[in-house]
Amino acid sequence: MKDIIRVGIVGYGNLGKACERVAINRNDVKIVGIFSRRAQNVTSPYQTPVFPYEDLQYHKNEIDVVMLAVGSQSDLVGVALKTAHNFNTVDAYDNHAKMSEYVAALDDVNKTYGTLSYVGMGWDPGIFSLVRCLFDGVLSDGNAETFWGKGVSQGHSEAIKKIDGVVRAVQYTVPIESAVAKAKLGGKCALTAQEKHKRVCFLVVDENADKRKIEREIKNMPDYFQGYETVVNFISNGEFEKNHTEMPHGGMVIKSGTVSGENVEMVFDMKTDSNPDFTASILVSYAVACARQARQGDTGAYCIFNLPLDILFEEKTQLIKRFL
Amino acid sequence: MKDIIRVGIVGYGNLGKACERVAINRNDVKIVGIFSRRAQNVTSPYQTPVFPYEDLQYHKNEIDVVMLAVGSQSDLVGVALKTAHNFNTVDAYDNHAKMSEYVAALDDVNKTYGTLSYVGMGWDPGIFSLVRCLFDGVLSDGNAETFWGKGVSQGHSEAIKKIDGVVRAVQYTVPIESAVAKAKLGGKCALTAQEKHKRVCFLVVDENADKRKIEREIKNMPDYFQGYETVVNFISNGEFEKNHTEMPHGGMVIKSGTVSGENVEMVFDMKTDSNPDFTASILVSYAVACARQARQGDTGAYCIFNLPLDILFEEKTQLIKRFL
Repeated sequence: MKDIIRVGIVGYGNLGKACERVAINRNDVKIVGIFSRRAQNVTSPYQTPVFPYEDLQYHKNEIDVVMLAVGSQSDLVGVALKTAHNFNTVDAYDNHAKMSEYVAALDDVNKTYGTLSYVGMGWDPGIFSLVRCLFDGVLSDGNAETFWGKGVSQGHSEAIKKIDGVVRAVQYTVPIESAVAKAKLGGKCALTAQEKHKRVCFLVVDENADKRKIEREIKNMPDYFQGYETVVNFISNGEFEKNHTEMPHGGMVIKSGTVSGENVEMVFDMKTDSNPDFTASILVSYAVACARQARQGDTGAYCIFNLPLDILFEEKTQLIKRFL
Repeated sequence: MKDIIRVGIVGYGNLGKACERVAINRNDVKIVGIFSRRAQNVTSPYQTPVFPYEDLQYHKNEIDVVMLAVGSQSDLVGVALKTAHNFNTVDAYDNHAKMSEYVAALDDVNKTYGTLSYVGMGWDPGIFSLVRCLFDGVLSDGNAETFWGKGVSQGHSEAIKKIDGVVRAVQYTVPIESAVAKAKLGGKCALTAQEKHKRVCFLVVDENADKRKIEREIKNMPDYFQGYETVVNFISNGEFEKNHTEMPHGGMVIKSGTVSGENVEMVFDMKTDSNPDFTASILVSYAVACARQARQGDTGAYCIFNLPLDILFEEKTQLIKRFL
């Protein structure tokens, strides 16, 4: 009989809903509840109980691990540090720049309160991080290069929507083919994000909007678009509805280098029709692993490359036959 | 200052020589010696000391880890079980069928004698095993499919050379493109090795050899060629010398499945100009990790998916910034 892992889901945006869909289909997971700040507005299509986020603490003895699917990544840190007082947690935190700081702070909380946390368990950070670590670990020459896309960047889409006159917007991050070819050739010239990606936008705007002004505003937006090859397309609401409401994503990690003068090329390539659903698939797999590891008495904050992959499987004796 | 790992290399065929080339170029590794059954016939281009294999035991206190680059995979098991009485070991054992048995026996020796062994640390078994475990661990729908090639299979090349009249021979394993396409489409139809690969052979034969008979003999060879799409090319010695003396290899692990009805495709693709050099790159990286782990007092036999990837790096605090 399968050992059942009892999970809580904090947050009910795209990722929280996707986590629910994945968890509901696993026979080794039971969802105890969805915990939301807007609990009164939330209904689950699967009749999962919904509780106010503030009540999470009262479910301490019923939950093995909490999946933090908090919408805003800036909120996530605070929620995680607080939740880890009482629960094991798993998240897909994705602010690369603040990761070290966050992991250190969470590790402190985990060790003080005897809990276990897995951090950055999506696809990037997540399995792409693992692949980068593998590529550079087994081939010391050069560095793994990462490309994102073709896929929707929600952050960039949101940034465009804030511009006056914009009704709907979606931004696709697209790898530049010549840069991909360059990465495959290897060499030590690290490519910048701007050299690797272009940004392709599709917008629905108000009838009397100044398209040239909007385009200029997008292309000059610091951090988001400035310095990037940016293409702005104005389309009808009908076309937007038909072609641009999905959330596909993907990416590549490429390593090219030599060992004893001989070339080696490794490429990891991922495509998904739904960014939140694939992220949820990874997050739920690691949530189950986290709950199991916590039962061994382990505490602290772990990143994906701090963990052996066999933790993703309950039955370990078959792994040699199956994978080796 | 780098901590220096002292290694011994057992065996001095293609893999042993490649391990020496990799180790000599690392500033954290010192090669104590090459240990060979044919020590009197071996000279190292790098003036590495060469000792008879039987003398390995006398170097117990000078060596942190022994790399088992024993030519014949059937010899490897015996050598490993004996070597693990006195040493930590790392190998690239590749008999998928006997792996479970070997790991269990070695683990017993390790635990009895207080040593640590890493098993199957090449590219397959090895990093391909890790990737299969990752793909199936984060996406439960379907199974990862592995393709080998285009690359030289030494076992198959040797088998052809044993046929009467054959002077030189090389066999390339080549993935069948329609099967690769099928794997990317997903679905639960597991492909057989025969459905996934064809075998392309290049032979130099005696002037008066019966080519039709040789071709027939190859195509009907059980286990090696029977049931495979096999192409036999007879070429001149000059052409062989010019085009077929390298040992390129490569392969792919493909996973295609759905999560909550949404498609996910993951592909890992590797190409190398030199199978032994890339295998040695992986083996040496894990040998260094093994020596470090052994110093923590750990014992037993480990496969690649039993180990976190951060063990490949001495300095762990920078990994979050570098990879996550």
